[in-house]
Amino acid sequence: MPRAVRAYDRKEIEFTRVLAFSDGVFAIAMTLLVVGIGIPTVREAQLGDALRDLEPEIVSFFISFIVIGNYWLAHHRFFSQLARITSPLMLLNLGYLAAIAFVPFPTALVGKYTESPITVIIYAITLSFASLLETVMFMVACRSGSTRVPVPRDVARYGVIASLLPVLVFIVSIPIALASATWALLSWLLVFPAERVLERRKPSGTDKAFL
Amino acid sequence: MPRAVRAYDRKEIEFTRVLAFSDGVFAIAMTLLVVGIGIPTVREAQLGDALRDLEPEIVSFFISFIVIGNYWLAHHRFFSQLARITSPLMLLNLGYLAAIAFVPFPTALVGKYTESPITVIIYAITLSFASLLETVMFMVACRSGSTRVPVPRDVARYGVIASLLPVLVFIVSIPIALASATWALLSWLLVFPAERVLERRKPSGTDKAFL
Amino acid sequence: MPRAVRAYDRKEIEFTRVLAFSDGVFAIAMTLLVVGIGIPTVREAQLGDALRDLEPEIVSFFISFIVIGNYWLAHHRFFSQLARITSPLMLLNLGYLAAIAFVPFPTALVGKYTESPITVIIYAITLSFASLLETVMFMVACRSGSTRVPVPRDVARYGVIASLLPVLVFIVSIPIALASATWALLSWLLVFPAERVLERRKPSGTDKAFL
Amino acid sequence: MPRAVRAYDRKEIEFTRVLAFSDGVFAIAMTLLVVGIGIPTVREAQLGDALRDLEPEIVSFFISFIVIGNYWLAHHRFFSQLARITSPLMLLNLGYLAAIAFVPFPTALVGKYTESPITVIIYAITLSFASLLETVMFMVACRSGSTRVPVPRDVARYGVIASLLPVLVFIVSIPIALASATWALLSWLLVFPAERVLERRKPSGTDKAFL
Repeated sequence: MPRAVRAYDRKEIEFTRVLAFSDGVFAIAMTLLVVGIGIPTVREAQLGDALRDLEPEIVSFFISFIVIGNYWLAHHRFFSQLARITSPLMLLNLGYLAAIAFVPFPTALVGKYTESPITVIIYAITLSFASLLETVMFMVACRSGSTRVPVPRDVARYGVIASLLPVLVFIVSIPIALASATWALLSWLLVFPAERVLERRKPSGTDKAFL
Repeated sequence: MPRAVRAYDRKEIEFTRVLAFSDGVFAIAMTLLVVGIGIPTVREAQLGDALRDLEPEIVSFFISFIVIGNYWLAHHRFFSQLARITSPLMLLNLGYLAAIAFVPFPTALVGKYTESPITVIIYAITLSFASLLETVMFMVACRSGSTRVPVPRDVARYGVIASLLPVLVFIVSIPIALASATWALLSWLLVFPAERVLERRKPSGTDKAFL
Repeated sequence: MPRAVRAYDRKEIEFTRVLAFSDGVFAIAMTLLVVGIGIPTVREAQLGDALRDLEPEIVSFFISFIVIGNYWLAHHRFFSQLARITSPLMLLNLGYLAAIAFVPFPTALVGKYTESPITVIIYAITLSFASLLETVMFMVACRSGSTRVPVPRDVARYGVIASLLPVLVFIVSIPIALASATWALLSWLLVFPAERVLERRKPSGTDKAFL
Repeated sequence: MPRAVRAYDRKEIEFTRVLAFSDGVFAIAMTLLVVGIGIPTVREAQLGDALRDLEPEIVSFFISFIVIGNYWLAHHRFFSQLARITSPLMLLNLGYLAAIAFVPFPTALVGKYTESPITVIIYAITLSFASLLETVMFMVACRSGSTRVPVPRDVARYGVIASLLPVLVFIVSIPIALASATWALLSWLLVFPAERVLERRKPSGTDKAFL
């Protein structure tokens, strides 16, 4: 759209509104996950067995709650450093939220088809897309000077690499999924040691900025 | 209702509350769409085929997310220019939100019956209704002097025409749907070039106002 | 609970939080209604007929949206006049929201069983309960001096009668439902002329207060 | 995460955002419960019987609404006493919300399998987990000095015991459930007299603090 870029200061209702709307999408996506766990229809005597069959769905509910919860924490941290929100950031945020709102679908799939590579791949692509848009939002915020404190170039570069790390892990997990779905899911845990390694190299002043 | 018109200033909690409520409806309508995508119940070997069958439902999830997201952006832009909200505006906003809350229904239909004209027509009517109420809200806000900056008459007229543009496109798509559902959906993209043409004629001072 | 009564001023986050939570329940109850409309599974050629069968469900979606929307407007009006919220009011508000959150159930029933008296009766009881708690909240707010402006005794009495009016109409509709479900639903429209009659008798100063 | 602890003051948007997000999860979990009540598909003549069969599901809707509503009140009370929110509290709050979001699942189970011990046990574990995290949040808030008023040591100890009380009741109900599901549910009511007994021993100054 060729419309003039609009910017809303952090003190305006319009800034808060973007957050309220985002939090709504996060809260619904996280709470909807529970609907994915089907209520079994069996005789009372067989309820124990039926619930044991639901175990993967229950586990995938909690895993996805943690996964989306982590994205929410990152979103909270990111916006806490913005001085204003611009219309391009709002557009990117909508795309990001589309990925978040989509997560209940691969979650339900992974819970139902535990051994299938395709479900893990769809999950990985969804989360890669969310992380990628997170990175783009970070870059746009730095370049347009929308942050509360100006972000030095080396901190910005570090931030982009740190945001891209999960994307990398998710993409690497795709070929692994073709061999074993379980190993692909477990490979996602590599994010944590990789983050630790990266953090040792972070430039000073990073803590005052986003990360 | 013959009750006296009430007005709530942008600084009052009551103004914010209308936005929080609206954002809730938007967020739920957008996130509920994912529930429309049914989880297939097949053997793991056939999951790939089953997911390919879900393609139109997944595509219609993302299209509707973009469609409602666009309405949210317009709603955000509109309210950002209001100095106060009056009870008639609140009533119109409720009607507008009814149309938004209804969107998941035609979305699910279009995703399931890709070749059917009726589903596209129901979709077009729903969105026309939302856009029409948007236009009425704009007119009421201008006339009752509820905007932050007074809107000159030519800018207001331009605004009404710009808001009615999608209504026109949706109505035109209804007879097209009778010939081909796919062409009708594609015809909605005409909004973008039409907006571009209209924008060249916009009176000066428009950017300071709503549009 | 024997705990000391707590009060939160309208400027505190705690006051806003009660509203944000209430608006969440309202927004979800209103948007969930659309899920009540089942997506038919038929051949494309028969989709027109299948959608015609859904007509009562679609109509009951819009009726319930209007009904809950009206309760939201009343809730908005009521809280706009409060100077502070006390813990008894918060408890009553929770009970009130339980009734609002329950509305999608009788809505779905009325949409599916158009000729059944029981569904209309369940609907009438649910709404009576909501209106009754509205009245109690009004009385508690007046008596505990939680309103922004002190409410004179005659205005308070008028307010209680006005809030009880829908309860009366809903209760009267229950025996009518036993004869005809449709007539019972139509009898709810009596609220509007009855409100008009009542309004002629309202004491001066009412507009400055709640109503 | 080795990141520096972040703290957001109660006046910052970031503090409000945690509450808005939490309220979203609460509102959705409470309103979703109604979806658990299936709409029967029978002939109109048999609707009365079908609805009578739904009685346990309707009762469990209202019980769970009250249960989650009580947790919401406690959450509201707890945060009303915080001067700032820190990142460890945000993490704990996410875990707490996972338990709240999970409640619709045991609720639907209890409504469907009224005589089954397993469903009551799952319910009790879910609520124990929520109450336990509540206790941990309370301890973390006291120790990190995040409360508005410093909490004296005896008041803090009393607070921890009071928060652990429901955990105790839920755990005790688990062996009871193996004998009778109904008695286990009823044993939960012991929380109220136990709270009363405990309250007589509360140290002075407790009311000014959390409880």
